[in-house]
Amino acid sequence: MTYSQLVAFIKEQQSFLCVGLDPDITKLPKHLQGEKDAVWQFNKAIIDATAPYCVAYKPNTAFYEALGIQGWTVLFETISYIKKSYPKHFIIADAKRGDIGNTSSMYAQAFFNQMGADAITVAPYMGSDSVKPFLEFKDKFTIVLGLTSNKGADDFQLQGSPNLYSKVLEQVSLWGTKENLMFVAGATQAVMLKEIRKIIPSHFLLVPGVGAQGGSLQEVARYGMTADVGLLVNASRSILYAHNGNNFFKAAAAEAQKLQSEMALLIKA
Amino acid sequence: MTYSQLVAFIKEQQSFLCVGLDPDITKLPKHLQGEKDAVWQFNKAIIDATAPYCVAYKPNTAFYEALGIQGWTVLFETISYIKKSYPKHFIIADAKRGDIGNTSSMYAQAFFNQMGADAITVAPYMGSDSVKPFLEFKDKFTIVLGLTSNKGADDFQLQGSPNLYSKVLEQVSLWGTKENLMFVAGATQAVMLKEIRKIIPSHFLLVPGVGAQGGSLQEVARYGMTADVGLLVNASRSILYAHNGNNFFKAAAAEAQKLQSEMALLIKA
Repeated sequence: MTYSQLVAFIKEQQSFLCVGLDPDITKLPKHLQGEKDAVWQFNKAIIDATAPYCVAYKPNTAFYEALGIQGWTVLFETISYIKKSYPKHFIIADAKRGDIGNTSSMYAQAFFNQMGADAITVAPYMGSDSVKPFLEFKDKFTIVLGLTSNKGADDFQLQGSPNLYSKVLEQVSLWGTKENLMFVAGATQAVMLKEIRKIIPSHFLLVPGVGAQGGSLQEVARYGMTADVGLLVNASRSILYAHNGNNFFKAAAAEAQKLQSEMALLIKA
Repeated sequence: MTYSQLVAFIKEQQSFLCVGLDPDITKLPKHLQGEKDAVWQFNKAIIDATAPYCVAYKPNTAFYEALGIQGWTVLFETISYIKKSYPKHFIIADAKRGDIGNTSSMYAQAFFNQMGADAITVAPYMGSDSVKPFLEFKDKFTIVLGLTSNKGADDFQLQGSPNLYSKVLEQVSLWGTKENLMFVAGATQAVMLKEIRKIIPSHFLLVPGVGAQGGSLQEVARYGMTADVGLLVNASRSILYAHNGNNFFKAAAAEAQKLQSEMALLIKA
């Protein structure tokens, strides 16, 4: 998917919602627990229910890897289903990979070619040759960790002067363009999006931390939105586990729709 | 595996060699190329040939993920084979994972419980809650990236004063002990192991970069060795692709034996 296709779809949907597909088997609706293909059934129902309200899906690989080989199979099935049924939706493999050059090339092949994701999240610690192999794929996006939404962001990202995450944004933004590069910027520290936008005024930001992690959508839009919207705001647990019963998917749709309505107002404003 | 079991095995084998199992299908011996289970055949032959000379195996997940679902299956088969046939060998999943707390817990389950690895490599960028869930598993090791062996290490790890990698070693070493925590320290900058040992005098170091990446074994031992050896030196390409013909495994064994002989002298000295 290209940058302009993504922006056009955001305007068409009046949404910049990304639904995180993080199926925790201990939290699945009761009637699915114990079913052989519970995770796949859950994902399919969530996708079908939320597709009208979101523009992106973000499966986090950890939740699939925790299920062993079967989990990896469900991850492939899930991505394949989205591509077939909702081809305009942007698919982010939230994998947080990154290794020496020849190894990052292998990860890029895995997620872009084998799996067919549009984007992958990448950790910056190992520097340029760990990031650049991902950027070489046409019409694919590399989403580099900038400022994350967790408590541990304090340990290294916010240390130093200028702090590490600013240095990461400055340096990494030189390696790509808004056409192939995005950054993760956590919503729990939304006011910091103002500082982030001084460094990277036009790249898309993938913003986790709205919902279960406590961030505010209004603040994210206020400090982070660009003329092209420039935001993908992720919600996972607040949508996936909105209800525990047979109609979990209806509760998930309602939650996604609520966020989409807020987003439509923010896009108009 | 416990710390003392690992140290005892190193002394028994007179080796601190780790063989990196990074099967690049474009580099496999010609007679295996095109075979349905080429990677599995290759891994099994390499493992059987090198087991007398090494103490650890380190499959890098990228090379398996690049092969799609089948690759993930081969990774499981490979680890299962090592555990069954060579139960004293230490198994490192070189996965470079790391995410917010609940997600890192999923990765820990994936690699320690589902896959049965003894250790996993973890990236430190996201801080404490991304690392600590791995440390909670008994008799397992978390190997955190300190100073890596690639060119990109200059971009962030070596920046700042004190530089980032020193801060990572100082901070992360407070979260665990030598009984559950190790660090990656690249051999291409062996003299820096002297500085690293000032910060972490007793943790094991996983040292990539000997062989294809150009590091020297003597220098690594000189600056990095502890009373318990405290080193796992990895070689991948120089062993795996020592020869391209039918007897590739004999060439791999010879290369591993050569390193083991050097290591035996260094352990004695």
